[in-house]
Amino acid sequence: MEGRLSRVRAAMAESNVDQLLLSIGSDLPYLTGYRAMPLERLTMAVVGASGPVTLVVPRLEAPRVDAREPGFLDVVPWDETDDPVALVADVVGTAGRVALGDETWSTFLLQLQDSLAEAQFVAASPLMAQVRIIKDDGELTALRLSAHAADRVADRLAATVFSNRSERDLAAMVGAMLLEEGCDAVSFVIVASGPNSASPHHEPGERVIQGGDAVIVDFGGSVRGYHSDTTRTFHVGEPPARFTRMHDVVEEAQRAGVAAVETGVTAQSVDRAARSVINEAGFGDYFIHRTGHGIGLDVHETPYIVEGNDLQLAPGMTFSVEPGIYVPGEFGVRIEDIVAVVDEGADRLNISDRSVRIVG
Amino acid sequence: MEGRLSRVRAAMAESNVDQLLLSIGSDLPYLTGYRAMPLERLTMAVVGASGPVTLVVPRLEAPRVDAREPGFLDVVPWDETDDPVALVADVVGTAGRVALGDETWSTFLLQLQDSLAEAQFVAASPLMAQVRIIKDDGELTALRLSAHAADRVADRLAATVFSNRSERDLAAMVGAMLLEEGCDAVSFVIVASGPNSASPHHEPGERVIQGGDAVIVDFGGSVRGYHSDTTRTFHVGEPPARFTRMHDVVEEAQRAGVAAVETGVTAQSVDRAARSVINEAGFGDYFIHRTGHGIGLDVHETPYIVEGNDLQLAPGMTFSVEPGIYVPGEFGVRIEDIVAVVDEGADRLNISDRSVRIVG
Repeated sequence: MEGRLSRVRAAMAESNVDQLLLSIGSDLPYLTGYRAMPLERLTMAVVGASGPVTLVVPRLEAPRVDAREPGFLDVVPWDETDDPVALVADVVGTAGRVALGDETWSTFLLQLQDSLAEAQFVAASPLMAQVRIIKDDGELTALRLSAHAADRVADRLAATVFSNRSERDLAAMVGAMLLEEGCDAVSFVIVASGPNSASPHHEPGERVIQGGDAVIVDFGGSVRGYHSDTTRTFHVGEPPARFTRMHDVVEEAQRAGVAAVETGVTAQSVDRAARSVINEAGFGDYFIHRTGHGIGLDVHETPYIVEGNDLQLAPGMTFSVEPGIYVPGEFGVRIEDIVAVVDEGADRLNISDRSVRIVG
Repeated sequence: MEGRLSRVRAAMAESNVDQLLLSIGSDLPYLTGYRAMPLERLTMAVVGASGPVTLVVPRLEAPRVDAREPGFLDVVPWDETDDPVALVADVVGTAGRVALGDETWSTFLLQLQDSLAEAQFVAASPLMAQVRIIKDDGELTALRLSAHAADRVADRLAATVFSNRSERDLAAMVGAMLLEEGCDAVSFVIVASGPNSASPHHEPGERVIQGGDAVIVDFGGSVRGYHSDTTRTFHVGEPPARFTRMHDVVEEAQRAGVAAVETGVTAQSVDRAARSVINEAGFGDYFIHRTGHGIGLDVHETPYIVEGNDLQLAPGMTFSVEPGIYVPGEFGVRIEDIVAVVDEGADRLNISDRSVRIVG
């Protein structure tokens, strides 16, 4: 934790940031081990150029902090009739340039801007991302454990009868399996069947899966806070040629994306490698999202694998490669693995079978 | 939905708000039925004084909207290489006073302030709260169904063996029971045992519950998006006199709080009624939080039952009454019910037994 704090302070100095304010989201636990509750009572850490980090926290939540408190944390509990924004403003003092955690509720930013009228507020993500984007060995181990737990679930799913279950029921099964396979918590589960599989972020509903359905299952859990995220596309019964063709194209695109990963190449070049396979097969209009996103303490974080992102990949970066084809009203196919950038290219953290999985 | 939109627009006119911007959180589903995904891709509704509501949404999530889209919604999907903040700014135009949903990520507010330098941004909660705070019959029915499901779980817990289970395992059981009893989803579960029960927002962990423990179980699920939230304090085996005494005081404080609920009295008067019982018993320093919070589409929302809140209660308001006593290092007691304000006073939505529940 002390090492992380030093690196963040170096990044603050580089970006001319005098104070860093962190609330809900993963920046705070990354630095301190403590995750703020995402509720209306403000929790906010104030990180200056040196000295202890001040954590302004609701008094009723202060006992949650104690157990995890690193030595450099100065805890300031506030009572229900106190004004926590005033407390934060007091600690900040007359700072010029203040970086604020991206997910902080806007209502608190508006109040801080009133209280600290002289301060210039900027988003904390550029400086936090440059530290968080490179995973250390402990983080990579947690990501790998989490990925392998998800892989075992994918394998179990291939032996599961899908038909006559609702999407919601199958999603609940996937969640239970993630816990059985060693995840501490379920991060999310998408089960999108039949025409719903053409909706990339479909919310599992009451639709009952039936013979002839394509079924996209996209899911992840967390181990020590680090998420997994993998997608396999199943077919209930023998698939028609059109589905097999599209699945082949997506599998090839995913391989091409992973093969393009190399130290020093840009994030967008990975997107281009996967996308060109789908474009050349004539399905380009149906690949309606970027190729991937970073993963760590957040399911989505930097680096984003998207056209326009010329960030150079470096060892320790971890992200998804997840091309897809979505034909509205018909079906969709997506294949997703997490990879870690290593000296030699990409190390796939997900290793379950990527071919068409035919289920009952 | 159209009625809600009219009431929100009337509130906008009253507060001189030209445009209302809603992103993640419950304001958007309250108005449109659609809940934005809490991710890095911006979803934002722009509500002007009249005409359709514009919903700027990531293209890959647009299929999620279609199914729920009310007639007044104009959906604008954005592609991965578009700038969604620029799209929102275009729709807003030259608005003077812009209200922004409280939970919107600060990073988007900072970008909006850059794009709309002339606009004055204010928090949307004052105007949204004045509409959402009064529940209609459909909302009250959902809250009651959700509360009664939680009550059935509380009754089942009283017949459950607690000892030799970890807090985490018991919390998982409570979650499963909420679903079995008819909730659509689990909102949260706190299981705080032994000395952990002195931490009001304790996160269930590996501690194994044992004979002699006080155990606070605070939990809720949702029915059609409306949450329950109830707390009962259990004791493993016969409790010592000190525990029984404190439980009696909290029970009496909770009764006094509920009895104080009446149309036209202030929110703070309910807090005072509950708190004075605990103060008079000499435990005032150990009651370290407000007496309650409103509940609806959010687990915590207005009205907050806290000193300093002189909002007058009115029929259709729903909130918790949840006094507690927390002795650090020793144990805690909390009792919580949701009540609805009716013409005659308070209607308790939670009706499970509030007396000391002795478990094995």
